[in-house]
Amino acid sequence: MSDESDQELGITRSKEYETGEWYAELVQKAELADYAPMGGFIVTRPRGYSIWERMQSSLDGWFKDTGVQNAYFPMFIPEGFLEREKDIVEGFDPEVAWVTEGGYDELEERLAVRPTSESIIAPFMSQWTRSHRDLPLRLNQWCSVVRWEATETKPFFRTKEFLWQEGHTAHADSEDAWDETMTRLDQYRRLYEDVLAIPPLTGRKPPHDKFPGAHTTTTVEALMPDGKSVQGATSHYLGTSFADAFDITYVDEGENEQIAHTTSWGLSWRAMGALFMTHSDDQGLVLPPTVAPEQVVIVPIWQDENKNDILEYAVEIETELADAGVRVHLDDRENRNPGFKYNEWELKGVPVRIEIGPNEREENEITLVHRPDGETETEQRAGAVETVESHLETVFAKLYASAETTLQGEIREATSRDEILGTIGQHGGYVKCGWCGNEGCEDPIKEAIAAEIVMVPLDRDEDPIQEECAICGEAAEETAYFAKTY
Amino acid sequence: MSDESDQELGITRSKEYETGEWYAELVQKAELADYAPMGGFIVTRPRGYSIWERMQSSLDGWFKDTGVQNAYFPMFIPEGFLEREKDIVEGFDPEVAWVTEGGYDELEERLAVRPTSESIIAPFMSQWTRSHRDLPLRLNQWCSVVRWEATETKPFFRTKEFLWQEGHTAHADSEDAWDETMTRLDQYRRLYEDVLAIPPLTGRKPPHDKFPGAHTTTTVEALMPDGKSVQGATSHYLGTSFADAFDITYVDEGENEQIAHTTSWGLSWRAMGALFMTHSDDQGLVLPPTVAPEQVVIVPIWQDENKNDILEYAVEIETELADAGVRVHLDDRENRNPGFKYNEWELKGVPVRIEIGPNEREENEITLVHRPDGETETEQRAGAVETVESHLETVFAKLYASAETTLQGEIREATSRDEILGTIGQHGGYVKCGWCGNEGCEDPIKEAIAAEIVMVPLDRDEDPIQEECAICGEAAEETAYFAKTY
Repeated sequence: MSDESDQELGITRSKEYETGEWYAELVQKAELADYAPMGGFIVTRPRGYSIWERMQSSLDGWFKDTGVQNAYFPMFIPEGFLEREKDIVEGFDPEVAWVTEGGYDELEERLAVRPTSESIIAPFMSQWTRSHRDLPLRLNQWCSVVRWEATETKPFFRTKEFLWQEGHTAHADSEDAWDETMTRLDQYRRLYEDVLAIPPLTGRKPPHDKFPGAHTTTTVEALMPDGKSVQGATSHYLGTSFADAFDITYVDEGENEQIAHTTSWGLSWRAMGALFMTHSDDQGLVLPPTVAPEQVVIVPIWQDENKNDILEYAVEIETELADAGVRVHLDDRENRNPGFKYNEWELKGVPVRIEIGPNEREENEITLVHRPDGETETEQRAGAVETVESHLETVFAKLYASAETTLQGEIREATSRDEILGTIGQHGGYVKCGWCGNEGCEDPIKEAIAAEIVMVPLDRDEDPIQEECAICGEAAEETAYFAKTY
Repeated sequence: MSDESDQELGITRSKEYETGEWYAELVQKAELADYAPMGGFIVTRPRGYSIWERMQSSLDGWFKDTGVQNAYFPMFIPEGFLEREKDIVEGFDPEVAWVTEGGYDELEERLAVRPTSESIIAPFMSQWTRSHRDLPLRLNQWCSVVRWEATETKPFFRTKEFLWQEGHTAHADSEDAWDETMTRLDQYRRLYEDVLAIPPLTGRKPPHDKFPGAHTTTTVEALMPDGKSVQGATSHYLGTSFADAFDITYVDEGENEQIAHTTSWGLSWRAMGALFMTHSDDQGLVLPPTVAPEQVVIVPIWQDENKNDILEYAVEIETELADAGVRVHLDDRENRNPGFKYNEWELKGVPVRIEIGPNEREENEITLVHRPDGETETEQRAGAVETVESHLETVFAKLYASAETTLQGEIREATSRDEILGTIGQHGGYVKCGWCGNEGCEDPIKEAIAAEIVMVPLDRDEDPIQEECAICGEAAEETAYFAKTY
């Protein structure tokens, strides 16, 4: 890095006009990821991975607080096991990577690198579930999965291998399984809202877009700045379809054999893609303090004659913040001027910069600059910890409010097919309208502008339904949210 | 489980006389792991996985405190990349699983499922290392790897897929890289000693048993109860061999291009196997409190007439312990008697059992029973948290002392080939002797009793060397530790 010019370090593309190119540049220049030599694969660099670790840590803690146990299942699934799922689940046709040779021998049966683990986990859930006392059984694993889809690589959004967690649970009845489905959906929503500073929509997928074999697929949808919707996580109520196929039964209190109801739910590193895409700008990465590798960077501004004094003052503040648990970095590099440092830490998304020059030192002050909007305030040095914490909260609130405003402005109503096409065509975003419930009414929208029904609200009362389906004019059964998708 | 008899629940094999069968039964009945449908693969159940998580958490914390950053690299390595390593590293011939098909197409180049990641990580270390300011570069990843070895499955000891961490670092010079190698070796030793309650030996592998391409391979060796040594973790100083091959160079302060020195180091879930094998007994699993899923189980002993009082007293103590951060479980199941519960929690390895009956309640006491030796003490209820913490420490100390005594009794000296053969043949354990340094002197021992040189001490002064090689009688250069291995 050190031999490159400032210009090469910075982002050269425009988020507004060249979103795809801007994103690709952002991910590489902010040192989040690199492209692997094989198409479709990426390397997650330490700065990117540490953000994933913080997201993991939040979600994993919530899972454990609500009865989930982590486990680890093999990364390979014999072809016969996948076939079993294919037999029972219409529409299940995973494009997977196949292991056909081990050592110097051809394998007798091909092994799929897991695209998702229902078919290897369900047989064990069957073994471990004997009595009602074994339920609920709540398993989760953090792992990588592979889906051999031939699309252009977009780091964290579209990669052949991706990191995720997959939860798999079994319950005595449908009510308990539905509660589970909602608990996980709510935890995903909370991750977006409280950790990523992104207000999402939550709802369920239309029946024709459910996870194969699911009774209901619920989804967290996040709006991206280019007006497209990202499916940010899904939580499936599977009914008894997997339990039937894999014999997940139990003996109830009356000694009768019963079939279990199951769920599965997953969040992938795509959530990280949504995070980077939502808040960042033409200067580089913007991160909420919740997940930022460094929450605060201190940049001292010295001349030869006051260097030691300034540095001493900066170190004191750094120590005080670090002792209080703030993730702080003091950039005391000799060979870089303050302007270079500002640019570099803006590119890397540090939420708050503290500038310390002769004035700050003389007046016993610190100057704080907010990454998202450059707002600058000079505050008393005394009580620096509380001051910094309050500024970090303000930065989070700014990011959230900005995303919230964008979202609210991007939900529009329409009452006809042409209006749907025109509105999404012109503005992007979501269009909500009455829908009869037939997949056929999605087709003309899909064909014309590649937008689809990304969700219908879970609670009909909250969102009054138009009387007629905007496409066919028959009676509306639902409110559909149309959008283009990632 | 609930419909099985006590006998089926318990361990039926003897640790002393049928160690292998006993271990297989232990792992399944203590619900640590199950066998997967494909030979060589296992499923890590929640109780097993939570132990892995606690080990991870300790080690990962120490890594981060000493400058290591986690990252994630693709699980597939193109054949050409592996070949590159094969070309430069004599003896590198990984037996791997090959992905040859993706979706419905044959791949142009086979992809290896990573057996270890040097060949995919090193090219990126080369890209990221430009200036001396980029060094040291310390990367680590937690992942699973696959080695297609055709051996019998032994959960956590021998499986085709296993979980591990692999660290990869680059340094400006050999001194810094050697310090790194020692730092990681020391952290592995600390994990064994302070977390797993296993005192290991540390040393380096003989030159003919180094990691291919390494300058020096250092090792943590743990003695198992059947007298064999387990290679518990390794830390390699790689010199410049990988840096030469993958062009990991940097510009030094004088603007000269220099070659970096690299290291790699790894610990796998085999450490968990060593843990289970070392402390457990014919009643089941024995765990140190550091990693036990539950540190304390409370078993109330009630009659109909005092049930509510006893339970209330038990809940109070449970709450007090839980609030203090003790991992405690109150076993208040109605349909099981105390004896059944004792057996079950002994099988599952809970370090301390608290029994609460009418006497305890009346006298305001608690009775504590240590899992390793059944030692029982009745203590005042007041100050329960300190009392329990002190007993947990005692249990840890007992486990450590017992393993330490075993180890010290199992290191014997020998001065001739026949003595080495006879001593290992009769007792197992380690035999230390003078060694000339030639691989040829290991051969007759290997051929006769399948024992090998598992390590030579790092510090020659600590361990005075015999004058002659015990096998050939030439001048001894080293002290060799012979043992049978896993």
